[in-house]
Amino acid sequence: MKVKIDGVEKNFRSVWFEDGKLFLIDQTKLPHKFEIFVSDDYRKTAEAIKNMIVRGAPAIGAVGAYGMVQVVKNAEENADNLNEFLDLVRKGSEVLKNTRPTAVNLFHAIDEVLQSVIDHNEVNGSYEIALEVANKIVETTVNSAYRIGVFGEKLIKNGYGISTHCNAGWLACVDWGTALAPIYLAHRNGKNIHVYPDETRPRNQGFLTAWELEQEGVPYTLVIDNDTQHFEDGSVDIVIVGADRIARNGDVANKIGTRQRAIVAKEYGIPFYVAAPLETFDLNAKSGKDIAIEERSVDEILYSRGLNREGSIVSVLSGFEKCKTRNLAFDVTPAKYIEGIITEKGIVNPDEKEILSLFE
Amino acid sequence: MKVKIDGVEKNFRSVWFEDGKLFLIDQTKLPHKFEIFVSDDYRKTAEAIKNMIVRGAPAIGAVGAYGMVQVVKNAEENADNLNEFLDLVRKGSEVLKNTRPTAVNLFHAIDEVLQSVIDHNEVNGSYEIALEVANKIVETTVNSAYRIGVFGEKLIKNGYGISTHCNAGWLACVDWGTALAPIYLAHRNGKNIHVYPDETRPRNQGFLTAWELEQEGVPYTLVIDNDTQHFEDGSVDIVIVGADRIARNGDVANKIGTRQRAIVAKEYGIPFYVAAPLETFDLNAKSGKDIAIEERSVDEILYSRGLNREGSIVSVLSGFEKCKTRNLAFDVTPAKYIEGIITEKGIVNPDEKEILSLFE
Repeated sequence: MKVKIDGVEKNFRSVWFEDGKLFLIDQTKLPHKFEIFVSDDYRKTAEAIKNMIVRGAPAIGAVGAYGMVQVVKNAEENADNLNEFLDLVRKGSEVLKNTRPTAVNLFHAIDEVLQSVIDHNEVNGSYEIALEVANKIVETTVNSAYRIGVFGEKLIKNGYGISTHCNAGWLACVDWGTALAPIYLAHRNGKNIHVYPDETRPRNQGFLTAWELEQEGVPYTLVIDNDTQHFEDGSVDIVIVGADRIARNGDVANKIGTRQRAIVAKEYGIPFYVAAPLETFDLNAKSGKDIAIEERSVDEILYSRGLNREGSIVSVLSGFEKCKTRNLAFDVTPAKYIEGIITEKGIVNPDEKEILSLFE
Repeated sequence: MKVKIDGVEKNFRSVWFEDGKLFLIDQTKLPHKFEIFVSDDYRKTAEAIKNMIVRGAPAIGAVGAYGMVQVVKNAEENADNLNEFLDLVRKGSEVLKNTRPTAVNLFHAIDEVLQSVIDHNEVNGSYEIALEVANKIVETTVNSAYRIGVFGEKLIKNGYGISTHCNAGWLACVDWGTALAPIYLAHRNGKNIHVYPDETRPRNQGFLTAWELEQEGVPYTLVIDNDTQHFEDGSVDIVIVGADRIARNGDVANKIGTRQRAIVAKEYGIPFYVAAPLETFDLNAKSGKDIAIEERSVDEILYSRGLNREGSIVSVLSGFEKCKTRNLAFDVTPAKYIEGIITEKGIVNPDEKEILSLFE
């Protein structure tokens, strides 16, 4: 998607891979600075996932896939035989998995590359196969995002106000986005729309969404998570959010605060949609109860990040050190609040039968 | 209430007046620094209201009352006759009123002192009368807060989890608090309770509530405004919040985010109570539609305040300068979500008949 740098528009993806190196738009620097993070080693790539340099389930999946390519390269360089090689590849995959627990795309992508290498069963040629599989995963992610946009766009009528939570745009999805893909297509199709991204404390991904919309010229008003005025006064016609993991009964794990918005949407009679590719579904999870919810450092709540007067990104203590708090990164929105799930294969109801039909 | 300074406990009120000087615990410095703000001039006092050095409807009312005492003193010093004096007093009252529009206690307190001076109709003795009326208003505020605590405490059973929003503690109410008064009394009566204060973006008054609870030794977990886990998992048995203005039909204007919590509480079947003294009621407002909602600078959203590494309180840019946003300070919670209103005269249903009976 478009980024304006010094007044000049350039096209970017949020994740790409060249000559063994992984390139990421650094999401910890945005919206302050547009910087590219480069990793030439899978351990550095794992750290980038953990430290949220990349965020968003589909983008994390892409980084996991390319991280596996780096794992294979490292194993080739350090193993004396096939057994050692496969052992190193498996160990490397664990390093990449032990980064963030909730986004299931990460595990799906890592396992797919891992399996291709195991099936190949030969050191020679493994790197090429891993790269081919990773590239295919990422292209599927981008194509799925676009298809989600095509299906979701039909829900957005001219004049609509759209609420969204966290960042489910192209930064989070390599390109296009999940929740934002329908919005981008509606805007490009000339529909008159207005987007209300939530700030999304504690990591403020709403500012990433606002930054994306600003680049693309989509009208928006960022609102704090406490604000329901746009629901109350009729400004919002539809809510669309992304997902980190979807259980087979249609329960959706997504950034904390999603459930609250779904409850408020229901109260105001506003349809609440989830946009996600098939790779976000976890058919092993019967319901939301089977989804692990990541608990992160309370420093993310007690400290605020931002630019100081000198233009450096710094943290300041907004709370106080002794303050007792907790930092749940996600919550589960029960299927009953969800009007539909927008996938690359169409829009389904959040129930087991319809979800399973996507995988037939 | 108690404040621990260098390990030593001292008793404080958040607002007091001595020798023509107004003393305030500076709420823009907390929870980082415990500092006393002193004003010897009504214009400085008005700025303190506007800049939120004092926050919370009852405390703002107290500051308005003492600000009027300073207005009278200034008028005595500058007027040559009664007409000039009364003119200056009226003008000064307008300066104090043109600070924040939503908390009705401010207008009630200012008008009560103003009327006492007008009724006295003599320059000589006006200062003493104004001071006497202001002191009476503040003592009534403190007594009402305590009475609210006594009535509200009965709602809190042993083992209860209590959710609250913003700061409705003793900082906001001179002493005791409104929503926190029942909590303090329950704790002092030996009940085993756990409080969940919301962070309350954008001004983070939740950290003031956490700081108060920390001083008093009440168990608590601060949660971000997006967090509903404590509702979902059964930790919360009751919600108690304060109010900035209550209409005669029981609609309640309070810090933005209150309505969202009320909707969530209803969804989970958890009773939602509002605690406020009679001075917070505005019988001229038929419903929430008649209550002016203050819109504040968007800088409060785009910038975050906190301690830097050198120990200074600074602001950093968490968003980006061009970001389109809005900063509504309050919202209206419709009466239908409210189980009861805890006042110094007892707990009433949020309907016109019961509310009017409080004033008979």
